[in-house]
Amino acid sequence: MVFDVVVDITHREGISDPEGATIERALPALGFDGVKGVKVGKTIRFSLNSEDPASAKAEVDDLCHKFLSNPVIEDSTFTVTEATGS
Amino acid sequence: MVFDVVVDITHREGISDPEGATIERALPALGFDGVKGVKVGKTIRFSLNSEDPASAKAEVDDLCHKFLSNPVIEDSTFTVTEATGS
Repeated sequence: MVFDVVVDITHREGISDPEGATIERALPALGFDGVKGVKVGKTIRFSLNSEDPASAKAEVDDLCHKFLSNPVIEDSTFTVTEATGS
Repeated sequence: MVFDVVVDITHREGISDPEGATIERALPALGFDGVKGVKVGKTIRFSLNSEDPASAKAEVDDLCHKFLSNPVIEDSTFTVTEATGS
């Protein structure tokens, strides 16, 4: 079975986010007021060939913790959905 | 009114994604087979103070095209939801 996977990686609470802070600081000068709390994250999308939904989720969870995110400074969440037409 | 905004930025179809390609090439050697079509994108989350949902959406759309993405090589989609408790 083929699954569509979306992994969402964000900075952990309390970890500084210089890119977000720079965007937040720049926007008022560019004419956009009212923007607060900018946080920049990363998404990784891929398709995964796996036996069943449970093993797909286990594999993605493993992937997230081992390679796709740095658990010391990043949180990761993911969604696994069966690819249409598989 | 305060809105929670999530902007999702992805490479446009046909634009090379070296980070995704590197992840895809590396995973089999690390013991993860069956991963294909890796695409890396970016999310920008913030809260926005705006008069009503329509003006919030217009402002975010403007922001996306002018500053948050590069429309030549990137696609952007966004969701605007009313912040709870606002």
